[in-house]
Amino acid sequence: MEEEKLIRLVDAKMNPPSLKDNTADKDRLIRALKKTLEKEEIHIDFSLIKELPYKLRDNNYDVLACIFDPGREIRVLDIFEKDTRIYGISVDLGSTTVVMRLIRLNDLENLDEITFHNPQIEIGTDILTRIHYASKPDGLKRLQEMLIDEMNRKIEELTKKHNILLEHIIGIAVAGNTSMTHLFLGLTPYWICREPYIPVVNKFDPINASDIGLNLNPRAVLIVFPNVGSYFGGDLIAGILASGMAHQNEEICMLVDVGTNAEVVLGNGDWLIGCAGAAGPALEGGVASIGMMAGPGVIDKVKIDPETLEIEYHTIGNLPPIGICGSGLIDLVAQMFIAGMIDIRGKFVPERCGNRLIEKDGIKYFIVVPKEKSGTGKDLTISQPDIDSLIRSKAAMYTILTTIVNTVNLSFDDIGKFYIAGTFGSYIDPRSAITIGMIPDLPIERYVALGNTSIKGASMLFSSRIYYNEMLRIRDMITYIELNVNQEFMQLFSAAKFIPHTDRSLFPSVKRYNEK
Amino acid sequence: MEEEKLIRLVDAKMNPPSLKDNTADKDRLIRALKKTLEKEEIHIDFSLIKELPYKLRDNNYDVLACIFDPGREIRVLDIFEKDTRIYGISVDLGSTTVVMRLIRLNDLENLDEITFHNPQIEIGTDILTRIHYASKPDGLKRLQEMLIDEMNRKIEELTKKHNILLEHIIGIAVAGNTSMTHLFLGLTPYWICREPYIPVVNKFDPINASDIGLNLNPRAVLIVFPNVGSYFGGDLIAGILASGMAHQNEEICMLVDVGTNAEVVLGNGDWLIGCAGAAGPALEGGVASIGMMAGPGVIDKVKIDPETLEIEYHTIGNLPPIGICGSGLIDLVAQMFIAGMIDIRGKFVPERCGNRLIEKDGIKYFIVVPKEKSGTGKDLTISQPDIDSLIRSKAAMYTILTTIVNTVNLSFDDIGKFYIAGTFGSYIDPRSAITIGMIPDLPIERYVALGNTSIKGASMLFSSRIYYNEMLRIRDMITYIELNVNQEFMQLFSAAKFIPHTDRSLFPSVKRYNEK
Repeated sequence: MEEEKLIRLVDAKMNPPSLKDNTADKDRLIRALKKTLEKEEIHIDFSLIKELPYKLRDNNYDVLACIFDPGREIRVLDIFEKDTRIYGISVDLGSTTVVMRLIRLNDLENLDEITFHNPQIEIGTDILTRIHYASKPDGLKRLQEMLIDEMNRKIEELTKKHNILLEHIIGIAVAGNTSMTHLFLGLTPYWICREPYIPVVNKFDPINASDIGLNLNPRAVLIVFPNVGSYFGGDLIAGILASGMAHQNEEICMLVDVGTNAEVVLGNGDWLIGCAGAAGPALEGGVASIGMMAGPGVIDKVKIDPETLEIEYHTIGNLPPIGICGSGLIDLVAQMFIAGMIDIRGKFVPERCGNRLIEKDGIKYFIVVPKEKSGTGKDLTISQPDIDSLIRSKAAMYTILTTIVNTVNLSFDDIGKFYIAGTFGSYIDPRSAITIGMIPDLPIERYVALGNTSIKGASMLFSSRIYYNEMLRIRDMITYIELNVNQEFMQLFSAAKFIPHTDRSLFPSVKRYNEK
Repeated sequence: MEEEKLIRLVDAKMNPPSLKDNTADKDRLIRALKKTLEKEEIHIDFSLIKELPYKLRDNNYDVLACIFDPGREIRVLDIFEKDTRIYGISVDLGSTTVVMRLIRLNDLENLDEITFHNPQIEIGTDILTRIHYASKPDGLKRLQEMLIDEMNRKIEELTKKHNILLEHIIGIAVAGNTSMTHLFLGLTPYWICREPYIPVVNKFDPINASDIGLNLNPRAVLIVFPNVGSYFGGDLIAGILASGMAHQNEEICMLVDVGTNAEVVLGNGDWLIGCAGAAGPALEGGVASIGMMAGPGVIDKVKIDPETLEIEYHTIGNLPPIGICGSGLIDLVAQMFIAGMIDIRGKFVPERCGNRLIEKDGIKYFIVVPKEKSGTGKDLTISQPDIDSLIRSKAAMYTILTTIVNTVNLSFDDIGKFYIAGTFGSYIDPRSAITIGMIPDLPIERYVALGNTSIKGASMLFSSRIYYNEMLRIRDMITYIELNVNQEFMQLFSAAKFIPHTDRSLFPSVKRYNEK
């Protein structure tokens, strides 16, 4: 509904001043808005007050007021003439990749979405390097400027492409992890990576985007997703918001973000527990080392005929294959297991692999695509260490999921929906992920891939203040549990380092080619 | 009471962060303050949040939070170490003279008070010239800068003199008329002097003093007294606040500001009506043209023996007389009337004036102090036109007072206290003002001179948030009435152009030397 929108335009038609009604310009506008909005607390920034006498007279005291309305108090962001279109930008602030969406706020139309590299990569691909750099003289300032400057360039490109004035971009909502958020805002990340791991801020108040140098309307409001701590960031809160899991009280749901860290949330509208990262080998490490980012010519789906052992694959853009991405790899290992080409330890089975199995410098390789068919002119192979690495990663994931479910005395069967967030998660075939024992053996329809939940969650804020308040409520609801890598965890982890698991009864649906 | 103070220091002792409590710095401070202050809405400016991690750790999470607490929502202005002293500045922002008071907010001790010329005088002594200048390119900016720069210089002098850090000056409260307030804030005064006389703002929200270039603590809060319209400014609201007349419901009181305009307020805690300026000849015009500002050697009191007709006078500093100030002039005319030296029209009576009466170029002069006794070596005289002018002014004043009392169907007898605001008002002897018929013939104890109510009212804001809210309530309570210079007004005015009045029954206490 229009009146639920966090940022919106409202008609403000005033009687022009007269000797009988000499109320001042600002107070006249406030009076009109109080009547329309039925709110007591309406605030106008001083910089707008300075322009008010001109803006009101230019429009004969009949204007659109652009307001920020999070609930209790209303802030007037600007005054526009009739029929003005206003815009918002939602941002997925990744440490590697930044995604920006341009949204027309009048009708919530998504006009464009662009993706670009986080320019801070120049300082360091990993966050710790950047945090270290931030301690140097002007380091934090430099890191912030790199990012803000690039964002300003991209925003300017967007405005030119869509023929929009910068002053009509009136809001920006940003979801990112705790470290990225701090670097973005120019807040020191120094204590984020040092025990006891304290951010400067958990819950950010909305500020003017111009306060950090963003070049939009000078009073455009900047909303940054809150965090629960150094290792549970706003990207996760955006994910929970986008999933809708905290918006209902019936079903217990699980959300897994398969990204840089293993981040898991379990709960519903009544309670949420979450855990994240730094808990044994992370999934992506194993996957990324041998794979490629999804892109043209990259294998994203694999099927192996258990009878003929013929390998079918699909590449993005149907181009000759040049590599394999994470989802393709999970497919491949799952299919090789079903076809009996690897055993439950993930080791190659020579009699099933045949002449596709080769050895170089004492390491076994399996030829996925022979050089005659590959786009590189070379064999595309997967090594035994690659598979071992994937198995460690999937075992870590399954152990984390088991641990968090155990913590609240539930079993996987109690989970109504199992949401997979992250772009990577969208490509994964849940059937294959179950087969290798990465995720529990639930009915396949319970798995829901959500794609980029950071940009989705951030964009949702523009559609309703309900989501804004939900965001704050989610942050306060979460009980963060520290995953202790203790003996129990290591036992669970060891048991999960098999395909699908040492306890086959946990994966009844997983059958090899020779099982009925 | 300490907890009623608008700006105050509160202890904020937090448990230092630990693995068991990893709440962020900002959220940790907010949590501690919420507990102490029992308030839900506590806001911290983004610029302070940036410094927070350092300030908290430097003080081992045991600090003083300096808060601005107008009632509903609390703003944290800064974080200080234990035993810090904080300061506020109150300002009477006159178009001619600016008065600044330095107050230590810990114990509300007034440390210093300085007076200096408003540097905008360079552009024009009268406000209209300045408003005109403000329309020129960069004119408004220049006028604002002249004032702010001078204020910054004076503030720096004060801090040096009292060995105070600028960052410990955390609040500034300013009372001035509507035009001066707009020029001070950089708001266009263009429409203030043009029908229908519309200010940009009636009620100013508190802003950061740094937003207009004041060089105090970067988050020092700036409070500007609200106005009722272009001709009823914050100086009057400060006057009402200082008088206390709106703080009780029993007595009906009248407040007269004898300054640049004839400004009058009537009412009590239930109702207030006010009128101001542009209503016939103003008092000061008449007084100022022949007199001098109070200063060394200026006659401020006059007494004439009705028998011997000897003139006794008092000069400031007991120096040889060099001129006469407004209060001395009113004394002089009152005493001359009682002694029969002028008649009820204010004309010199030659047989009573004797050889003190001289004539030059057809104009009659009365020698108040012969050259032998004066400090200038010349006769100090008062001319017939001077007296005529004073009579017009006093008649205007009395007519305004009569009109406003008539408006609410009251008589002067209903007025419990008659407050006289303004420095000039402090020197006037009410007995003399009654004698010439400038103010009504009430028992003398009902007259209370309040002195500089602008600086008093502004300073009061620091002592309690009750006064801050009272300031806002007063502004909303006032019914401003336009004094129509109609036929009725002119009849009253004509009747008042005599000493004390054509209707002697209105002034029973006024007796000439030969009356019993």
